[in-house]
Amino acid sequence: MLPLSLNTVTVRERWSLADCIEGCARHGIPGIAPWRDRLAEMGVAAAARRIRDAGLTVTGLCRGGLFPAADAAGRAAAIEDNRRAIAEAHAIGAACLVLVCGGLPPGSKDLPGARAMMRDGLHALLPEARAAGVALALEPLHPMTCADRSVLSTLGQALELCDELGEGAGVAVDCYHVWWDPEVARQIARAGRRILAFHACDWLVPTTDLVFDRGMPGDGVIDIPALRGMVEAAGYRGFVEIELLSRRWWAEDPDDVLRIMKQRHATVC
Amino acid sequence: MLPLSLNTVTVRERWSLADCIEGCARHGIPGIAPWRDRLAEMGVAAAARRIRDAGLTVTGLCRGGLFPAADAAGRAAAIEDNRRAIAEAHAIGAACLVLVCGGLPPGSKDLPGARAMMRDGLHALLPEARAAGVALALEPLHPMTCADRSVLSTLGQALELCDELGEGAGVAVDCYHVWWDPEVARQIARAGRRILAFHACDWLVPTTDLVFDRGMPGDGVIDIPALRGMVEAAGYRGFVEIELLSRRWWAEDPDDVLRIMKQRHATVC
Repeated sequence: MLPLSLNTVTVRERWSLADCIEGCARHGIPGIAPWRDRLAEMGVAAAARRIRDAGLTVTGLCRGGLFPAADAAGRAAAIEDNRRAIAEAHAIGAACLVLVCGGLPPGSKDLPGARAMMRDGLHALLPEARAAGVALALEPLHPMTCADRSVLSTLGQALELCDELGEGAGVAVDCYHVWWDPEVARQIARAGRRILAFHACDWLVPTTDLVFDRGMPGDGVIDIPALRGMVEAAGYRGFVEIELLSRRWWAEDPDDVLRIMKQRHATVC
Repeated sequence: MLPLSLNTVTVRERWSLADCIEGCARHGIPGIAPWRDRLAEMGVAAAARRIRDAGLTVTGLCRGGLFPAADAAGRAAAIEDNRRAIAEAHAIGAACLVLVCGGLPPGSKDLPGARAMMRDGLHALLPEARAAGVALALEPLHPMTCADRSVLSTLGQALELCDELGEGAGVAVDCYHVWWDPEVARQIARAGRRILAFHACDWLVPTTDLVFDRGMPGDGVIDIPALRGMVEAAGYRGFVEIELLSRRWWAEDPDDVLRIMKQRHATVC
């Protein structure tokens, strides 16, 4: 069984990062993946210390990326922000910086252009990530997010980029984003040791919102054990991170959410 | 410019098939693609006659498919229904029978299994389709429909099946379903003369519903002229079918919808 990590977005509406760190310790969850906004609230140095004192592994920092922008100044600002994200990931000892690569610039219909901006951004960033010892985890997002969140849509596309980028670049495999892909088994095998993170959540039927209706593992139709088996067969030995963006789960008591996460981790993922 | 066809689902809430046939004639739209429920209401023979008398080209019959089912009886019933669809497509002289291949059987998490059922269904159907002279148009649907509508998710996957099936099988390329795909240009080129239909509608930002929030061409972010250029370069010489499943457009006066469709056809697709 891969050890469990709490992606803090799962309880973002009710818990600060400090609450999450204490919650993980209290529930015996050994991993944590913070989001940058909450890291900033707490202060990076304080967060790093508290996470270390709690004995937690930081399975990833969410998130860098968001490369495409309408003009050169916007793209440069994105790179600047990603530089800060690399420094933060280094400071908290994150296993990787998770990259959500960004959608089309506002008003644009130029998808190949946005993909070129993503590629340029990654090339600009990689040397600094390498220098800091921070691995970049390219996370393909579900194609329904292509317009406004991620022009990186498939594992195959992410691995093409990784092939080109070389050392220091890998992928984050999120069940929710890749389960539908007819190529998923082949691409996970191809990824091999470049799998830097494994995220679990479930696809609900019906799904009522394109962003905030993800399911707790076991509540939907994704064969999560099959996907976990694929990443393990590819050599992945990290954590399974449960990351829910869900209005339904945000409304629950976070201690209940963590309890249910632990049960599902034991039975489903 | 590819000639325009009205997919009747675009005005399904207010117009019968007879209304659609008259509407196309009145607005000078030379193609029509009926749905089977409306064809049944009118009667196949009557519809065939009226469509012929109006001088319309039937660019496709929507829809066959829906192969996966929980048990063998369910799968046999689906094949039976597809046989009737082939007969109907033949009767109205449809350029193809559009196949929406179906989602996971209720309660199932076995996506490879559902895909095998789709494949078996296609193999069972093809001889009869060939005998009737009805081309089968495999339509990959957006991955967000994988669980409940279509385990056929990409053009690449559809063309693998077409390679295996041989003569009589091709694809329907719908901008809405394929625009995000990093492989789209390569797969459209690969498809070549196997492109049996080209459907246009647009991806809205934000999209508020996974099924019924498609945009009128020009209102979203899809570079429809680029996709049309790809299918033309691949040798496609058929119609561009406007197919909207949209609560917003269903509420409009259908004559207004057809007028706007014609404008957008002239300027966008």
